[in-house]
Amino acid sequence: MKVAVVLSGCGVSDGAEIHESVLTMLALTRAGAEIEFLAPDIPQARVVNHLSGEAAAGETRNVLVEAARIARGKIKDIALADSGDYAAAFFPGGYGAATNLSDFADKGAACTVQPDVLRFASAMAQAGKPACYICIAPALIPQIYGPGVKLTIGTDAATAKQIEAMGGQHISCPVHEFVVDQKHKVVSTPAYMLAQNIAEAASGIEAAVATTLALAKGHTP
Amino acid sequence: MKVAVVLSGCGVSDGAEIHESVLTMLALTRAGAEIEFLAPDIPQARVVNHLSGEAAAGETRNVLVEAARIARGKIKDIALADSGDYAAAFFPGGYGAATNLSDFADKGAACTVQPDVLRFASAMAQAGKPACYICIAPALIPQIYGPGVKLTIGTDAATAKQIEAMGGQHISCPVHEFVVDQKHKVVSTPAYMLAQNIAEAASGIEAAVATTLALAKGHTP
Repeated sequence: MKVAVVLSGCGVSDGAEIHESVLTMLALTRAGAEIEFLAPDIPQARVVNHLSGEAAAGETRNVLVEAARIARGKIKDIALADSGDYAAAFFPGGYGAATNLSDFADKGAACTVQPDVLRFASAMAQAGKPACYICIAPALIPQIYGPGVKLTIGTDAATAKQIEAMGGQHISCPVHEFVVDQKHKVVSTPAYMLAQNIAEAASGIEAAVATTLALAKGHTP
Repeated sequence: MKVAVVLSGCGVSDGAEIHESVLTMLALTRAGAEIEFLAPDIPQARVVNHLSGEAAAGETRNVLVEAARIARGKIKDIALADSGDYAAAFFPGGYGAATNLSDFADKGAACTVQPDVLRFASAMAQAGKPACYICIAPALIPQIYGPGVKLTIGTDAATAKQIEAMGGQHISCPVHEFVVDQKHKVVSTPAYMLAQNIAEAASGIEAAVATTLALAKGHTP
């Protein structure tokens, strides 16, 4: 089974959360899935010095080029991806989901999803193929699936309120668990929205990945 | 038990191998170890565009600042680290081990280890504390432990020859296994020197981490 993992850069504060991306990859590989990494070929919205936590003024990096660090070079521009090639799609978190894959970090409920990402994610949804959104990435779900879709970003009240304003139905969820919207075949788990360490993040991601793959095989979790 | 994980940047071609770093962290956290990340506060020897595989001409990055991406910001300059604080040390691979932690990539058997890294790693060795070197990082072992030390980088004949020229005793080793030098309490495993996928890398790293922690507790594996 071939699946897509969509990355938003390389680093929790301006790209894809590295641990979540690697844990997703590990769970998928151990389940026998073949992974193709995808990312938009666009400039990062920002570059953050991860030591100081401050913006790296004047520095520019490209989302696809930085995401290639996680993918060890094997990654494709999401604009060129055909949803017909994949049985499921996975979106690790990291602030890049809210700054590069969308502008949720700046616009909140008025956000839009990056056009190439929206096209791909919507095509997967319309084809009835399952998807798994991790950490802050579920903030994209309402724009892709429309009103009433069930999802979680954990327990953060302010973020949950913005998701409800977009028409999503936020369900509080502990770090070891996940939420499934059966109608839309969309799975979400809090990971580092709640995790205190990498083992906690791994527990929820492993469960969410297994459930998403079961949906891709036509099973009901 | 508090342990050190020494990173060389963030990305297989110019820094720490991301999967190996995360897999080491996952195995340590699941075993109940407390991790402190360390890296040298020096410019990277090179910056590589991981999409094209080419050098990013004119670009400069700092090893400690980039390693902070893997560490989610919690990382310390290795020059300030006290070996007395840690029960064991772990060195994930990635080409940064051969370009930033040492100049093995350019100098081969005539290489030297970066001074702050050498001071810390030698202090750990002299204190009889175990260490674990992964992938290409075992190329540092002969300079730290001296002639006769047993180690593996897998099966690469050219690299093994350079290690023998430095006085190391190279032992061929499959990806799922590891080599232990009992006298020096130093463990090594090939990981992505041989791994065809992340699950293969994980198998050897998990075994090597468990063995290193057992040595730190005074057990003989």
